[in-house]
Amino acid sequence: MANAEKWVLTVTAQTPTNIAVIKYWGKGDEDLILPINDSISVTLDPDHLCTTTSVAVSPAFTHDRMWLNGKEVSLSGGRFQNCLREVRSCANDVEDEKEGVLKSLKGLGDLHVHMCPTIDFPTAAGLASSAAGLACLVFSLAKLMNVKEDHSRLSAIARQGSGSACRSLYGGFVNGSFLKEENGSDSIAVQLADEKHWDDLVIIIAVVSSRQKETSSTSGMRETVETSMLLQHRAKEVVPERIIQMEEAIKNRDFPAFARLTCADSNQFHAVCLDTLPPIFYMNDTSHRIISCVEKWNCSEGTPQVAYTFDAGPKCRINFTQTEKLLPNFFKGCSFHFPPNSDTDLNSYVIGDQTILQDAGIKDLKDIEALSTPPETKENLSAQKYRGDVSYFICTKPGRGPAVVNDESRSLINPEFGLPK
Amino acid sequence: MANAEKWVLTVTAQTPTNIAVIKYWGKGDEDLILPINDSISVTLDPDHLCTTTSVAVSPAFTHDRMWLNGKEVSLSGGRFQNCLREVRSCANDVEDEKEGVLKSLKGLGDLHVHMCPTIDFPTAAGLASSAAGLACLVFSLAKLMNVKEDHSRLSAIARQGSGSACRSLYGGFVNGSFLKEENGSDSIAVQLADEKHWDDLVIIIAVVSSRQKETSSTSGMRETVETSMLLQHRAKEVVPERIIQMEEAIKNRDFPAFARLTCADSNQFHAVCLDTLPPIFYMNDTSHRIISCVEKWNCSEGTPQVAYTFDAGPKCRINFTQTEKLLPNFFKGCSFHFPPNSDTDLNSYVIGDQTILQDAGIKDLKDIEALSTPPETKENLSAQKYRGDVSYFICTKPGRGPAVVNDESRSLINPEFGLPK
Repeated sequence: MANAEKWVLTVTAQTPTNIAVIKYWGKGDEDLILPINDSISVTLDPDHLCTTTSVAVSPAFTHDRMWLNGKEVSLSGGRFQNCLREVRSCANDVEDEKEGVLKSLKGLGDLHVHMCPTIDFPTAAGLASSAAGLACLVFSLAKLMNVKEDHSRLSAIARQGSGSACRSLYGGFVNGSFLKEENGSDSIAVQLADEKHWDDLVIIIAVVSSRQKETSSTSGMRETVETSMLLQHRAKEVVPERIIQMEEAIKNRDFPAFARLTCADSNQFHAVCLDTLPPIFYMNDTSHRIISCVEKWNCSEGTPQVAYTFDAGPKCRINFTQTEKLLPNFFKGCSFHFPPNSDTDLNSYVIGDQTILQDAGIKDLKDIEALSTPPETKENLSAQKYRGDVSYFICTKPGRGPAVVNDESRSLINPEFGLPK
Repeated sequence: MANAEKWVLTVTAQTPTNIAVIKYWGKGDEDLILPINDSISVTLDPDHLCTTTSVAVSPAFTHDRMWLNGKEVSLSGGRFQNCLREVRSCANDVEDEKEGVLKSLKGLGDLHVHMCPTIDFPTAAGLASSAAGLACLVFSLAKLMNVKEDHSRLSAIARQGSGSACRSLYGGFVNGSFLKEENGSDSIAVQLADEKHWDDLVIIIAVVSSRQKETSSTSGMRETVETSMLLQHRAKEVVPERIIQMEEAIKNRDFPAFARLTCADSNQFHAVCLDTLPPIFYMNDTSHRIISCVEKWNCSEGTPQVAYTFDAGPKCRINFTQTEKLLPNFFKGCSFHFPPNSDTDLNSYVIGDQTILQDAGIKDLKDIEALSTPPETKENLSAQKYRGDVSYFICTKPGRGPAVVNDESRSLINPEFGLPK
């Protein structure tokens, strides 16, 4: 047992979100959250999109508690409990020095915890926030409890909270691996390459205005597994080959192959959603128009220079492009077709890395209105504008994995009482 | 050789269109137009939707000519030529009695023909008009040339013009069969049951307003065959089982099974379109909303009472319902969610069998505006209106196969000169 003094030990950590380029959809085991196929993701730069979590442990705490974005929430869900139990089982004693006094804190795994996860980006963007949040929770708890196991073990724990969470334990390019042993012990994430490996890859996220009702990915996946006649074929016959090809494309920084696989796998993921009873639609007319813009751009350039991938939410559509040189023109095309509503200011229309605005010569909203028809659409007579259909863009790039935040002023937990600040 | 007199022999025929409930998408042989899987269709009542074709043969004609909807078109396409050649090869002598003189007309297969196909319903509805047109052409030419082969042989000829055309040679419920011999000779249509077999089946076609660019089904199919990783699995592993189940459902007039299979197969067809590179979208946000209305309706009723199927065009969405008793309420729901624009009159908002309006108590547009929120949507707080998104509805039912029109005044060809009237 830990000693009964009123100490509070806290840790704060930041974890990036990630976007899958080979998608995982469908669990083989609902309890262990074992994906039915491998997936590959790109970790997004935490400077633009991340989650921050502060956790605390103390002998004074009477039960486990969680405040999500500052508001207390129930911890009754099995997923959190599974993650918590697993981290606790790996806890080690901590030597904590505060105000010059060294304390040896023992039996941390037996104490209650307080957890304060926050999502630092608009959850409305639909950017797998729960995955990043889960990963951050597991990472910060592991640091709190001095867990010595490596990230692959943590990724297996995070996976029990969310199938996509395991990939947020690493930066760069990550493979969220498939079950190979019966108990799922090696269903973990593996880093394929770090974020510096492919440093001219640019990511533009279009956050789409949508009042569409969302199907949660948990129930969506379950329904697809139960009813789609195409899913098992995808998981067993199509994805394994694509995983090999995608790993090769990433290794060789082969953008045309990367783009071809990313687009094809996004479309196939939405195809199995559509093959579900009742069908699940995560794409809408705006998604179709974004795809059409990208296809036209690539067609006019003669080779894939932009890739798209659409996740399990109606709102988020992601484009990748390799060369920064292309970016200003591609972005001009995007803002030509999807200009902001008149009540939007430029700083809320483009967030993240705003240098794209300077590179595209856009200083204010008038510059967007003055954009000429993109050359790739001219001959198609399809230079239509869909004002306000994209609420805003986030410009970012591949980024690093989770990290502890050492600046105590950024902790979300009061170090004296262990409650949210 | 036919004799060289200036006689003109004409025939006029009407052919229904059909709607597939198990879809055919993808050819195994581009020249013979052999479908890669069986399909099952329902023939629509020609009183509401049909094509009319007049054809003529004469020793005076100098070359084959065609007027589509009154306008002369080129006959260079291989498809027409194939159909024409096949019909000619089956030609027999005709005994023609005009003004009391019996003429024996020989060698008809060696003479030129004039053909006047017309589509009697808005082609904008996207209702497989080319399939019906082709079937009508083959049927009328066969009558003209006194072809003695049965409808199954004619369906094989029509299939060489359009893969869906073969099914329009029969009324009721039709199986467009899969290739069993190498030369496709038994890739024909077979009638499963005539239109009287299931006489309380009602069909409501929602014609959707859309400016979406269409991918032609010919090029779409080719691209899916070349690029989809799911299509072969669908054709070989999924459809054969569904064909057996659908034949059983039709035989037993088992509407829940019919509805389940129809919806699932429509969705899977659109799933393989989405799995194509570049992806093909035939459904849009309005389609998704119609599906959502039907799903909610069926869910609130506890059993499938309405089925939907969406074809290879952005504009046409078809609903089936079994019992006429349900129809007024279901139609009230449809017109609540998709009311007409204010400049539309009731007679152009509902065409075909307009008795549905009386049954639903709708006498003018004000009655549509006054409709109360459908009960099945109340609890979902999703009683939104999408004014003008459905241009009009066509109400119809299963109908008979092709027939010769004996009333000469309805011929589209001048019997003296063999030119369009």
